[in-house]
Amino acid sequence: MKETRSFTRKLDFKHGQVDLGHGSGGKATAQLVAELFAAAFDNPWLNRGNDQAVLPMPGGGLPSRLVVTTDSYVVSPLFFPGGNIGSLAVHGTINDIAMAGAWPLYLSTGFILEEGFPLADLKRIVQAMAEAAAAAGVSIVTGDTKVVERGKGDGVFINTTGLGVVSTGISPSGDRARAGDRILVSGTLGDHGVAIMSCRETLSFETTILSDSAALHELVATMIAAVPDLHVLRDPTRGGLAATLNEIAHQAKVGMIIREAALPVRPDVAAACELLGLDPLNIANEGKLVAIAAPEDADRLLEAMRRHPLGADAAIIGEVHEDRHHFVQMETGFGGRRIVDWLSGEQLPRIC
Amino acid sequence: MKETRSFTRKLDFKHGQVDLGHGSGGKATAQLVAELFAAAFDNPWLNRGNDQAVLPMPGGGLPSRLVVTTDSYVVSPLFFPGGNIGSLAVHGTINDIAMAGAWPLYLSTGFILEEGFPLADLKRIVQAMAEAAAAAGVSIVTGDTKVVERGKGDGVFINTTGLGVVSTGISPSGDRARAGDRILVSGTLGDHGVAIMSCRETLSFETTILSDSAALHELVATMIAAVPDLHVLRDPTRGGLAATLNEIAHQAKVGMIIREAALPVRPDVAAACELLGLDPLNIANEGKLVAIAAPEDADRLLEAMRRHPLGADAAIIGEVHEDRHHFVQMETGFGGRRIVDWLSGEQLPRIC
Repeated sequence: MKETRSFTRKLDFKHGQVDLGHGSGGKATAQLVAELFAAAFDNPWLNRGNDQAVLPMPGGGLPSRLVVTTDSYVVSPLFFPGGNIGSLAVHGTINDIAMAGAWPLYLSTGFILEEGFPLADLKRIVQAMAEAAAAAGVSIVTGDTKVVERGKGDGVFINTTGLGVVSTGISPSGDRARAGDRILVSGTLGDHGVAIMSCRETLSFETTILSDSAALHELVATMIAAVPDLHVLRDPTRGGLAATLNEIAHQAKVGMIIREAALPVRPDVAAACELLGLDPLNIANEGKLVAIAAPEDADRLLEAMRRHPLGADAAIIGEVHEDRHHFVQMETGFGGRRIVDWLSGEQLPRIC
Repeated sequence: MKETRSFTRKLDFKHGQVDLGHGSGGKATAQLVAELFAAAFDNPWLNRGNDQAVLPMPGGGLPSRLVVTTDSYVVSPLFFPGGNIGSLAVHGTINDIAMAGAWPLYLSTGFILEEGFPLADLKRIVQAMAEAAAAAGVSIVTGDTKVVERGKGDGVFINTTGLGVVSTGISPSGDRARAGDRILVSGTLGDHGVAIMSCRETLSFETTILSDSAALHELVATMIAAVPDLHVLRDPTRGGLAATLNEIAHQAKVGMIIREAALPVRPDVAAACELLGLDPLNIANEGKLVAIAAPEDADRLLEAMRRHPLGADAAIIGEVHEDRHHFVQMETGFGGRRIVDWLSGEQLPRIC
């Protein structure tokens, strides 16, 4: 991104639109970068005005490793109760860094804009990104903007790639779930997906449910302070808790049993799901995590989670056991058991 | 990305298409990742199957810094003479790392796929990425796949984010051009843009011009070995040499003068430009660089560049001088001078 310079006329963030020139690499691109992105994401690395950021090596000689993760965000609609694509693109990528037990430091961001997109909406999105990044203590250090013709995109797509550091010795990973381990979730399930659905034109219904979109790295730091040997951390986004537990079961070659009565679900989310014929287990979350830890660590971990605002509704929901089929099963309210399968296809497209 | 596992039926890479389920985070996503991405990008970090890669801290205690850069690729058409969006997405991001004087180590990649896109085409693109990455010695360590509905994208958009390391003391930057410095280019100008144009439906003409898409980090390493104190390195992509020199002139608050007779341009590229009313100075390159160095280093730098296959046509094309207007000027073949302005808008949309 380039440094601020003067242009003949300021961008019109009230009535202006994205045009193909904003993706040209010429003056119009430089103006968009200077008056919007550089102004919002202001930091010494970005302000240098090069095509890449040169960063101090994190860790400063301490025994640590680098963590990198990437996500493209295509959520529809772009604005939803509790956030927008900009805040989501910051929170989501920070969370994938945090799920390695790591501390996020830097983000890069790539925008794919559709010709004709209102500059006012773009500004709201970019400001939400800047605020989310500042609140989380991460810097957006380099970026890129492309523009595609009308009808070849859908308003805005955002990629964010995150960089963080994790101390040697902290190594949660999906393949580390062991028979006997306890499974915990940090809070209520399905809030993000139901919030998105509530404002889809085809599904619109009255609700006050907000997306749970939030950055989880501080919660994770609290958890690691209490229990350094977390076996698994993962955020149940697309596909919900069901997909996340099935992924882990396959990675670690184990089975799992969870208890329906232990699952935290908001009553209004449960009601919306019943209305729509959906299962909260399959619905995306954007501010929740699944943790798996040794049985002797579980209670201490739960206490640590509950002390943090983003873990207030945390619960132990089940156990890992040996199972050569790698099934995830659920004890239902009626004492029965059912297989919690992950869906093959799409229940809710473009949820993130 | 997830590890390889078994699915009831293999993906049909001959006749199959991308569907919304491939972006769901469920079984269909896992299958696409296992049978295509993980198979093609195979490396220990990716194969771990988590949502992020945990990497050894580069540099191992040596005095070095981290370099990060990001680019989204929306080139149209997806396949062009000399490459495709996949090879371009690897070369382009490696080059932005290399332009910091750095050595590229890792890439992340995010795909935004349009529903209905042929899996056969996706496979060709992914294989081109894997080959380009392997040839350059970089690993694609983490990734993400999203799918949007038909008509909300354009086949495939790819984001790549690159990580590299640069030694302390090597610090080329756009703001370091000084009066008296010499300006060099590594080879012929305009090849990529003209190759893309030659296969656009609206502009189709007969040519054998190939895109110059290539990874430049080895050329850069050769240059740094000869001249450690390179003042500026930048690749003239979107907007061509004209935009790149104007950007640098503004960053460094200097003027520049280049000589038309010294600019390397292939005769067939020059002819195509004349036919289309375009200026090779404004046309994108994807395997060329601009270098600016102290006058006493220029000849040694030129020799080093010419010894490398990607710098065989390198040339000294002009000088930096003081100019409070930060103009880039060109001495024309007829002894005159003209301002080399950067275009405000778009000459060639979606060139990269």
